[in-house]
Amino acid sequence: MHRLTVELGERSYPILIGQGLLSNSNNLAPYIRGRQVMVVSNETVAPLYLQKLMEGLDGCDLDQVDHIELPDGEAFKNLDTLNRIFDALLECRHNRSTTLIALGGGVVGDMTGFAAASYQRGVDFIQIPTTLLSQVDSSVGGKTGVNHPLGKNMIGAFYQPRLVLADMDTLSTLPAREFSAGVAEVIKYGLICDEGFFSWLEANIERLMARDRDALAYAVERSCQDKAAVVAADEREGGQRAILNFGHTFGHAIESVQGYGQWLHGEAVAAGMVMAAELSRLRGDITGELVERVRTLLVRANLPVRAPEGMTSGQFLTAMAVDKKVIDGRLRLVLLAGLGRALIVSDCSPEEIEKSLRLCGAA
Amino acid sequence: MHRLTVELGERSYPILIGQGLLSNSNNLAPYIRGRQVMVVSNETVAPLYLQKLMEGLDGCDLDQVDHIELPDGEAFKNLDTLNRIFDALLECRHNRSTTLIALGGGVVGDMTGFAAASYQRGVDFIQIPTTLLSQVDSSVGGKTGVNHPLGKNMIGAFYQPRLVLADMDTLSTLPAREFSAGVAEVIKYGLICDEGFFSWLEANIERLMARDRDALAYAVERSCQDKAAVVAADEREGGQRAILNFGHTFGHAIESVQGYGQWLHGEAVAAGMVMAAELSRLRGDITGELVERVRTLLVRANLPVRAPEGMTSGQFLTAMAVDKKVIDGRLRLVLLAGLGRALIVSDCSPEEIEKSLRLCGAA
Repeated sequence: MHRLTVELGERSYPILIGQGLLSNSNNLAPYIRGRQVMVVSNETVAPLYLQKLMEGLDGCDLDQVDHIELPDGEAFKNLDTLNRIFDALLECRHNRSTTLIALGGGVVGDMTGFAAASYQRGVDFIQIPTTLLSQVDSSVGGKTGVNHPLGKNMIGAFYQPRLVLADMDTLSTLPAREFSAGVAEVIKYGLICDEGFFSWLEANIERLMARDRDALAYAVERSCQDKAAVVAADEREGGQRAILNFGHTFGHAIESVQGYGQWLHGEAVAAGMVMAAELSRLRGDITGELVERVRTLLVRANLPVRAPEGMTSGQFLTAMAVDKKVIDGRLRLVLLAGLGRALIVSDCSPEEIEKSLRLCGAA
Repeated sequence: MHRLTVELGERSYPILIGQGLLSNSNNLAPYIRGRQVMVVSNETVAPLYLQKLMEGLDGCDLDQVDHIELPDGEAFKNLDTLNRIFDALLECRHNRSTTLIALGGGVVGDMTGFAAASYQRGVDFIQIPTTLLSQVDSSVGGKTGVNHPLGKNMIGAFYQPRLVLADMDTLSTLPAREFSAGVAEVIKYGLICDEGFFSWLEANIERLMARDRDALAYAVERSCQDKAAVVAADEREGGQRAILNFGHTFGHAIESVQGYGQWLHGEAVAAGMVMAAELSRLRGDITGELVERVRTLLVRANLPVRAPEGMTSGQFLTAMAVDKKVIDGRLRLVLLAGLGRALIVSDCSPEEIEKSLRLCGAA
């Protein structure tokens, strides 16, 4: 088992990475302060892993363990579903010293985290991400929240878990499309801040796609290290943390126009990273050769590298204007200054953006 | 104009107390960082004071000022109404550097504060409390949130405003019942931490009830000072801050059983303070004479000092068991150890509590 610490002063927390972690109470007990636990999962993940987690919780000193299963999917990441968690907590009389455990992917993690941030103005929570995407991304960094019909992640909080458990065993049942979507974020870390990792990925992408346990554990650990380093330097996204959004502004536009749940988040980010790379090249910051390396690696990971069929550049620009990264009317974008080096700019013209979109197949 | 500072490190903020404050941009401009403002008010307050505030905002350097009016009343303090604020923010394309201004009583303030805490994971907000209760209580301390059908203030955040403006002019239109409800919280400060203020209130309650401007300003300032001192010492309610809940555990039971909005919050707290005082006397901590002084002062402020007609002690005990102050099954209560001295206890028996309830008319 590997152990990382996300350094955030009094809000620091560990990430444990390994196999067979769920059912071992030694991994859980030290991080549960009260005597009540509410496990939040979804209807897909609960049948697979809830029993294992319950075994782990059996060995903890608890009075009450409840669980709730949410419907599965980004389409349910909203205030109504969030309220079902509050209903369950109040019906089961959970008090201020309860611990919420998120067992599932990013949607479950984001909603459980926001529920924990808001229930009685804040209770403890533990993240057990069961998808590759959530292991390398949404379980690290304290971003929690839900979507609004007019925008993704528009309602939420910065709230840190007490513990993240990344159990490689849970990746064995992950559908191929979702697995690839996770690899998109893994590749992102190489691009924005870790040149050596990008080269490792180019050399090892077949092993990773075959879900070789060692390759997986290495990729998750290095991704978490990269993200933890960025988050530790900028917990509340005042500045440099924004580089983690590489590909995301374009990606969110795809998700929002196609309707949440049509494209997976990681798929949208993959295409978005190619758009951001093309834009970087257009501005003269990186070479066409690097853009092709990005495209090639994403294709090898079975990820999309073009805009959705029929989506226009006008649709992109409209959707991007409500993205959170707009400050006082200026669109901030994360581009590349080289391999492993990200750059935040706010001086892109709509024409430049449109050109890069067309290079990626936008109508 | 008087100026207090609530000392909370980098989250410190000023409270300005005086007359004619709303329409003066000098009071607002220094606390607005971006170029967008959303004023959140309700259908009762907006017709009275929105225009004045707009005059004040006219003198600030802003690109966009929007406003939304919520329905009036505690019954609307829920996730659905909260979502209307998010709808308005997104429809008007407010970005991360927007400022929310709460213009209204505690309900508007609590919901606007939680909306500010959650919109895009946190934007600035300014409190302009227009009721006596919200001026002396809910605008100081950073508690924000909404109710759930199973409990009051169960969903929320600790989130500090950038500024509180308490304009005495807004109290002139306050209905008598609401004014009295505010006086209940004023009296509370005397009881829990300010013996001299309690004596001042006994000597000046008629002037205060006649809404004498000087008496009002003095009472608001001293209440805010008392509360600010308690909050500064314990921002997140780990310990001593709980004394601010004197009378509230009983009061919340009344509000919850009667249905939110039947009894005003301050009215429920008034009756709750007498119950807590009776319980303190039963335990031998204060004299019967002090209980009578409490009762007399509340009656002079036209406040209830008995349980609602027909409400049983069983109903109280059941409702109190889901109150937030329960830690691992033990009911924590705030009692009095003397005039101006509060005491937190967790060893009250249901029998003692029942006895004090019956002394206050519970069936």
